[in-house]
Amino acid sequence: MKIIVDAFGGDHAPEEILLGCAQAMEELGVEILLSGDQKRLESAAAKLNLSEQLAHMEILHCSEVLTMEDEPASVVKEKAGSSMAVGLKALAEGKGDAFASAGNSGALVVGATTIVKRIRGVRRVSFAPILPKFEGFFMLNDGGANVDCRPEMLLQFGIMGSAYMKKVMGIENPRVGLANVGSEDHKGDELRQEALALLRACPSIRFVGNVEARDIPYDAADVVVADGFTGNMMLKLYEGVAMAVMDKMKGVFQKSLLNKLAASVVYGDMKALKKSMDYNEYGGAPIMGASKPVFKIHGSAKASTVKNALRLTRDYAQSGIIEEIARAVGKKEETL
Amino acid sequence: MKIIVDAFGGDHAPEEILLGCAQAMEELGVEILLSGDQKRLESAAAKLNLSEQLAHMEILHCSEVLTMEDEPASVVKEKAGSSMAVGLKALAEGKGDAFASAGNSGALVVGATTIVKRIRGVRRVSFAPILPKFEGFFMLNDGGANVDCRPEMLLQFGIMGSAYMKKVMGIENPRVGLANVGSEDHKGDELRQEALALLRACPSIRFVGNVEARDIPYDAADVVVADGFTGNMMLKLYEGVAMAVMDKMKGVFQKSLLNKLAASVVYGDMKALKKSMDYNEYGGAPIMGASKPVFKIHGSAKASTVKNALRLTRDYAQSGIIEEIARAVGKKEETL
Repeated sequence: MKIIVDAFGGDHAPEEILLGCAQAMEELGVEILLSGDQKRLESAAAKLNLSEQLAHMEILHCSEVLTMEDEPASVVKEKAGSSMAVGLKALAEGKGDAFASAGNSGALVVGATTIVKRIRGVRRVSFAPILPKFEGFFMLNDGGANVDCRPEMLLQFGIMGSAYMKKVMGIENPRVGLANVGSEDHKGDELRQEALALLRACPSIRFVGNVEARDIPYDAADVVVADGFTGNMMLKLYEGVAMAVMDKMKGVFQKSLLNKLAASVVYGDMKALKKSMDYNEYGGAPIMGASKPVFKIHGSAKASTVKNALRLTRDYAQSGIIEEIARAVGKKEETL
Repeated sequence: MKIIVDAFGGDHAPEEILLGCAQAMEELGVEILLSGDQKRLESAAAKLNLSEQLAHMEILHCSEVLTMEDEPASVVKEKAGSSMAVGLKALAEGKGDAFASAGNSGALVVGATTIVKRIRGVRRVSFAPILPKFEGFFMLNDGGANVDCRPEMLLQFGIMGSAYMKKVMGIENPRVGLANVGSEDHKGDELRQEALALLRACPSIRFVGNVEARDIPYDAADVVVADGFTGNMMLKLYEGVAMAVMDKMKGVFQKSLLNKLAASVVYGDMKALKKSMDYNEYGGAPIMGASKPVFKIHGSAKASTVKNALRLTRDYAQSGIIEEIARAVGKKEETL
């Protein structure tokens, strides 16, 4: 199992990426093929005392970097020589089994579509973050790759998400729900009503109907299907509200000496609570619908999150879900 | 100032509505006209020792109630004799200055549109909840009345929300932002791009551009403009995530004897925190765009929330914003 890693994507590249790759190589039994500037990688490795580990990794040398400010489409044009584009091309050419990057999500989606290509029959590649809920986690699909969606795309997000949650995240018989403004079947706009009918008629998933946003943080479904506009709003609001409440709580604990004392008592538990609500803990988001496994590592990932993400990337590649999606989508294609 | 109140809307009707009305009459100097079953009101008042107060209120007798399970459109058809419909008709006929109900929001929007009628030039009536943010509050407009929106409607939501925040909530020069998947102008779908251009060109509001969901709980804008589908998802997710974090915190505080001790120290501050994140504290949501003031009281409102809501209803009626909206919308109509 060889994972191609964009060594220059993310807020803490290349150092934390390199550290995470070294840990992954040691702990997960994977081979690493880095894309990025060889000289800069060697010098970073020397500083981190990782030269020996780097010597066990392959490097695809390229000097350019695609930044967060670059347009997503630049991955196939202006930044075709970037570490992200070069890594994606290497995956497409079979130089590795999967590709992971902590760089620009939009560019990764475009690259997965145009360089790696979609699974035959898949309408659109999606961005599918794993988010914490009250207990455990759920997948939001699509979390922002497609701001304009048609009903068939929502159906496919459900099929793809279900396969991932089952085979990679170990959820037996995952429940798929459609994010909507009410639980009754007639709720929502035309897109929701048509998508509901398609999802309900799909034999390969366990569809539980419309789910309301209020219930999603509790346990409404294992896969929450949304168009990319709504999904992205939800993803970011989820993060914002949780952060705001946590920040307020911090304010309470710093308010007085007595409160600080109380804080010291519950410190460990509160830290665990914060961790349980932090979506960075889940390492990232698979890009679903590409014909080979592409994984988005969180942009702010440090070494241990990079390693966790590479574990998920490995599991994604080993799971056989791309073949499963191809079969499920191919079957649906005949009837659509 | 006479406020017409739906005595049979909401989870705790008629008791808590009656109590809230009695408080409002005493503290806010408003007259109350109740719509609902006279006998049931008299018996509830007797039990609550409020018979004297009830004697100072007028009653529009009607025996039907429109429930949460009724279709919104039933307010003009099957449930035209309900306390909500009768109250709305009384407002339309000038029997009072404003109408407030804790009943079915969808029906209230339909009733405001068809019974009270829209302000001339207003495309759609909207549901505009006031939500807590890190410090203070903001308005979400539309929070769910219109699942399908056109750009001109989003423009009007901005204009109406700005007028309300200025004149009723006392925000000087309120900032209006468009909820979108990114802050740059080119972000989002066609609806967002066209709405952005209209909002930017509108001289009567202080438009601050696109706002990302992540920043909304902090201080992105005083009025967050959204289509009703996205707005409703945001409204309910906001509530759900805050509740989930609070519930988790409760779990921490009950975990051990020592934790319980710590909890007792910060109890008052945590209660205040919870209150500051509880959108029930703001009493409800104005229905915007109706030609007379219609106000949605939270469905779960108890007496003090009912009273707060009636204060906002009174302020809405006294603010002159309906005339202001008519002027602003009329002016825009000429150029649209």
